[in-house]
Amino acid sequence: MSNEHVASTITIDLGERSYPIVLGSGLLKNRPAVPDSWLGTGLVLIVSDENVAPLYLKPLVDSFCHNTSDIQIHCHVLAAGEGQKCIASWESIHHKLTEIGAQRDATIIALGGGVVGDLAGFAAATYMRGIGFIQIPTSLLAQVDSSVGGKTGINLPAGKNLLGAFYQPQGVLIDLATLTTLPDRELRAGLAEVIKYGLIGDASFIAWLEENLSALLELQSDALEYAVGVSVKHKADVVRRDEREQGVRALLNLGHTFGHAIEASAGYGEVLHGEAVSIGMVCAAHLSNLLGDISAADLRRVAQLLDGTGLPVTLPPRSCATSLLELMALDKKNQAGRLRLVLLDDLGDARLRDDIDPALVIQTLEAMS
Amino acid sequence: MSNEHVASTITIDLGERSYPIVLGSGLLKNRPAVPDSWLGTGLVLIVSDENVAPLYLKPLVDSFCHNTSDIQIHCHVLAAGEGQKCIASWESIHHKLTEIGAQRDATIIALGGGVVGDLAGFAAATYMRGIGFIQIPTSLLAQVDSSVGGKTGINLPAGKNLLGAFYQPQGVLIDLATLTTLPDRELRAGLAEVIKYGLIGDASFIAWLEENLSALLELQSDALEYAVGVSVKHKADVVRRDEREQGVRALLNLGHTFGHAIEASAGYGEVLHGEAVSIGMVCAAHLSNLLGDISAADLRRVAQLLDGTGLPVTLPPRSCATSLLELMALDKKNQAGRLRLVLLDDLGDARLRDDIDPALVIQTLEAMS
Repeated sequence: MSNEHVASTITIDLGERSYPIVLGSGLLKNRPAVPDSWLGTGLVLIVSDENVAPLYLKPLVDSFCHNTSDIQIHCHVLAAGEGQKCIASWESIHHKLTEIGAQRDATIIALGGGVVGDLAGFAAATYMRGIGFIQIPTSLLAQVDSSVGGKTGINLPAGKNLLGAFYQPQGVLIDLATLTTLPDRELRAGLAEVIKYGLIGDASFIAWLEENLSALLELQSDALEYAVGVSVKHKADVVRRDEREQGVRALLNLGHTFGHAIEASAGYGEVLHGEAVSIGMVCAAHLSNLLGDISAADLRRVAQLLDGTGLPVTLPPRSCATSLLELMALDKKNQAGRLRLVLLDDLGDARLRDDIDPALVIQTLEAMS
Repeated sequence: MSNEHVASTITIDLGERSYPIVLGSGLLKNRPAVPDSWLGTGLVLIVSDENVAPLYLKPLVDSFCHNTSDIQIHCHVLAAGEGQKCIASWESIHHKLTEIGAQRDATIIALGGGVVGDLAGFAAATYMRGIGFIQIPTSLLAQVDSSVGGKTGINLPAGKNLLGAFYQPQGVLIDLATLTTLPDRELRAGLAEVIKYGLIGDASFIAWLEENLSALLELQSDALEYAVGVSVKHKADVVRRDEREQGVRALLNLGHTFGHAIEASAGYGEVLHGEAVSIGMVCAAHLSNLLGDISAADLRRVAQLLDGTGLPVTLPPRSCATSLLELMALDKKNQAGRLRLVLLDDLGDARLRDDIDPALVIQTLEAMS
């Protein structure tokens, strides 16, 4: 087997559920692309969507041809979009699995962005109480965030990700070459999560991002590999310390409580998740500044980095502070009716707080309009 | 709080997922019936069915009145029967949870038999990636088998328990007084699983069951407490050694591969699960005798104990050996296309085998008609 596309490996350290994240450029051209050791003894179902399948499904299927075992490969291509994260699509994967005779030794490969990964992962977690699962994230957001850490799930009409499971894959394969076909707006949205890792725990990474932003936006592969690698390592470290989101993992929600409310208020799909998180992080920085925890200069630095990435840094037109606060109160991370917010003590130092006066949140939202 | 109904406690030892099984008679009359320490900080949803709710829902709800905290209690009563183990019922629990505003700190209590426990457990496992879960099994089958060990799930048209999760509860409350309202046929079906624990690992328990069968059938509480306690301890021990059914837990399937085929062939609901397992265990004993592993006298002892319990010990009329074998080949415990069967090396000593000639299975099924 050739191995011309060199990759680095980051391990998610979770005891017996540990697994590797293999990162590099052009990995889908390797044969096999997916290491044999990640597969079970049974068949493989590749789940993808109508955007990604035309680009990468054939290369992935072909990459198994040189596989030593004569493994059965099946494909299930869904429509694209957040609307697919629903019970009906999840059920369709299960029906496909029973139709092709999948047993407990089968493996699902998710080839696509966060929607495909979350949905296919939840199907893998629940078919016969859990079968093999491999992530091949093809969007920047999925590569640095949703494919790492074992969160799977689907939406209910009442809210996003209301159904799901914590379910770790056997491995994650990140081919940075897939970013060349990602729409520019989605690349920028993914960078919001990259910047988030700097803000919550890595001041030097913020400085690096400020220096290398244009290289990233031009998809220079060294810069991409560094930024994605650092992001994945930060996520891996947080997941290792707190797999089931009892503590430190909550810091990953910087900007997300604001962001989810902005997404819900704008109507899902109008504002991309990363765009909402960008605005949400500026809100969090603004509120942290109001509390006297970060300086006005630091607040400007946060807003400038996100703005320079081409991300929105103010609320959408006609946003209503009161209704946003009401939406924030529905967030599933709240406890005992108290709003929980991740705020900044410094650039690179975040803390979960549940002692914030809602009047300050309103003041922040009004200032951000 | 009064504590007149004394209980014994068996711990399921699974490291950080360990939990207690509290066993006694009249426990639902205690106030509170469910220890406060099992509950989260959020609301409680009791899931039950139309058979069990009229008998035990009010006592359970009332038992919270003396609870020190002012916890919110909600109820969700489903129709009775295996048909409820479906995606629609599972979805209905999730809609109820969102409607009442359940957050991650909520708890589901399953009050009923195996169907309610499996279904409500799968809902608890998947709502917001997992909320609190408590089992109050009211059938003998659920008390000695399905409520212990963390298997949850629902059926698909293609097969039973095809969707599910391993999800351990915070505690299991077994009130033996609920068996007084259990239909006689279901009591006997539950005893099939009790007898199974003797056959797979406890020869002295087989002897005790032969001695005390009439006391059990008369619901004498000492005998019941002993038999249920021994059964739960055996199940707990197997689950501790093999939570996710990679090895020894498979022994609990004695009679089940035959049994599932018998259930599917007869049409679900015609033959109760325990009745099918009874026939299946005689099949397994017959095949073990054919292989020369147990004597004809031991085979007779197995059949007599089950027959004395009032359980069927021969195949239903018009059973077809070939089609039963085909159904057995679909069992989700098979691997790499090989039939896996639990067979007896001795009474009280079982072993998982995948080297059985299908012709011997046919011969067994034909002899059992």
